[in-house]
Amino acid sequence: MFYFAIDILGTISFAISGVLTAMHKRLDVFGVFIIAFVTATGGGTLRDLLLGNTPVGWLQKPVYMFTIIGSVIFAMLFRKYLKYFRKSLFLFDTIGLGLYTLVGLTKGLDAGLNPLMCITLGTISASFGGVIRDILCNEIPVIFHKEIYATCSILGGLLYYMLFWSKVPPAIAYSVAIGFIILFRLAAVKWHWSLPTMYRE
Amino acid sequence: MFYFAIDILGTISFAISGVLTAMHKRLDVFGVFIIAFVTATGGGTLRDLLLGNTPVGWLQKPVYMFTIIGSVIFAMLFRKYLKYFRKSLFLFDTIGLGLYTLVGLTKGLDAGLNPLMCITLGTISASFGGVIRDILCNEIPVIFHKEIYATCSILGGLLYYMLFWSKVPPAIAYSVAIGFIILFRLAAVKWHWSLPTMYRE
Amino acid sequence: MFYFAIDILGTISFAISGVLTAMHKRLDVFGVFIIAFVTATGGGTLRDLLLGNTPVGWLQKPVYMFTIIGSVIFAMLFRKYLKYFRKSLFLFDTIGLGLYTLVGLTKGLDAGLNPLMCITLGTISASFGGVIRDILCNEIPVIFHKEIYATCSILGGLLYYMLFWSKVPPAIAYSVAIGFIILFRLAAVKWHWSLPTMYRE
Repeated sequence: MFYFAIDILGTISFAISGVLTAMHKRLDVFGVFIIAFVTATGGGTLRDLLLGNTPVGWLQKPVYMFTIIGSVIFAMLFRKYLKYFRKSLFLFDTIGLGLYTLVGLTKGLDAGLNPLMCITLGTISASFGGVIRDILCNEIPVIFHKEIYATCSILGGLLYYMLFWSKVPPAIAYSVAIGFIILFRLAAVKWHWSLPTMYRE
Repeated sequence: MFYFAIDILGTISFAISGVLTAMHKRLDVFGVFIIAFVTATGGGTLRDLLLGNTPVGWLQKPVYMFTIIGSVIFAMLFRKYLKYFRKSLFLFDTIGLGLYTLVGLTKGLDAGLNPLMCITLGTISASFGGVIRDILCNEIPVIFHKEIYATCSILGGLLYYMLFWSKVPPAIAYSVAIGFIILFRLAAVKWHWSLPTMYRE
Repeated sequence: MFYFAIDILGTISFAISGVLTAMHKRLDVFGVFIIAFVTATGGGTLRDLLLGNTPVGWLQKPVYMFTIIGSVIFAMLFRKYLKYFRKSLFLFDTIGLGLYTLVGLTKGLDAGLNPLMCITLGTISASFGGVIRDILCNEIPVIFHKEIYATCSILGGLLYYMLFWSKVPPAIAYSVAIGFIILFRLAAVKWHWSLPTMYRE
């Protein structure tokens, strides 16, 4: 129940981040909806395709589609007031980042994959919706050059395995890793952390 | 037999729309062929991948590949005269839009999915070839900001279900929905209908 | 063992080609790694998805991920000296082109597909990593307008079938086709061969 609530809040937040990007590109109502949908479901869809878990998740659970339609309508109606929700949206997004990372990692464990592959799947689940959003909007994905985002997933995934190998019970390792990802992301944004670039003169 | 003829005409028309876009971007012969191929098969391929229907359709039916190769060669040889075919191509494209929507919707029904998901699959089948074409050509997809296109699919899909739930026999609901999509698209182009944008000042 | 060595050399070379493109776009360390990864694995991943061979190859064999991580670290540390390796990298890349084409073609044969489809799968395996790299970097894919690249795969695949149908033993046809692709690509680069464009005035 708690997981489900977070999952829906994460979906809303990802969808609204898509709406904001799409509005900025002056897309029409259909374009805005597609970008919102892809931002919210893209990462999990790519993960499901790579694993062969088909039909992919959102085709089997219409609740995601209804949530996204509702979020887009809400964002359209209250678009002048969205700035007042900026902090809440950022928080949902950050909680979603933590949760989706561990959900993706767990799907890899279920498929009997190597730890490195599970961390990769967790990172894909949490980050690639935004990557596909940026590609559809004809931008270089923001997580490739500006924000610390996927890095939080990778570090959180490593922490999960370190705890797991230290015989910490899985449920605790799971929760601690989610908490770490959320706090690390909050810290990265607060103190403007960024990864070094490697421009080749 | 009738379906097959429309399917091939739709493939030809989508392929030639890809050739025109690719020529405009000054791609080489290989690039032109790839864009034509992706425009014609991209929507159905994405639908098959999401459903897990693999190997995807065009891998199993070489007729599509031969049709696309033939269309590209034809379009290359007669590229100066393509403007005289503009109306025929637009008509084939519009018929393809109607047919592919219902083909995609039916694949969703076969997989036992929710009506909303079936309409989504129909829309993806009919529209996403053009989306992938535009992304490969480094443009924001035209259906996200200019044309009424996917909207016809969505409305046609809704009409199908409304008729189906009103106990109209499936074959009639199917045909009426295809006809509606075709007429709606013709009307949208004739009277320059477009969706509102939501630019955020 | 020989195949495995070439496979790893091809992966290294594709990964470093990704690193060079990503550095040029001033991406951060994570972005550079993702572009390297996608360049090295994208073609095979798309082939596996189209065929329904899931979980896709790199999820099942962590050696590719380790090879790519090692290549990226190497390329970062020695980025000032990469120009001295340019010829070796080009050679690995060309060998990879030949090998991956035939690997992809063979996967199509194993799935019982038509020759044209097998050649297509070979071409996708060898070329689409670079296509996805260019899309993620917001460029029109270079193989669509500049280089003879995919054309080598297509011709090599046709040669394989011509030899095979002439009763040449498969192992010999396989090796000859790889050799042909490598030599054709070397010749194309040496004498600046390119495909005609079809710009529409």
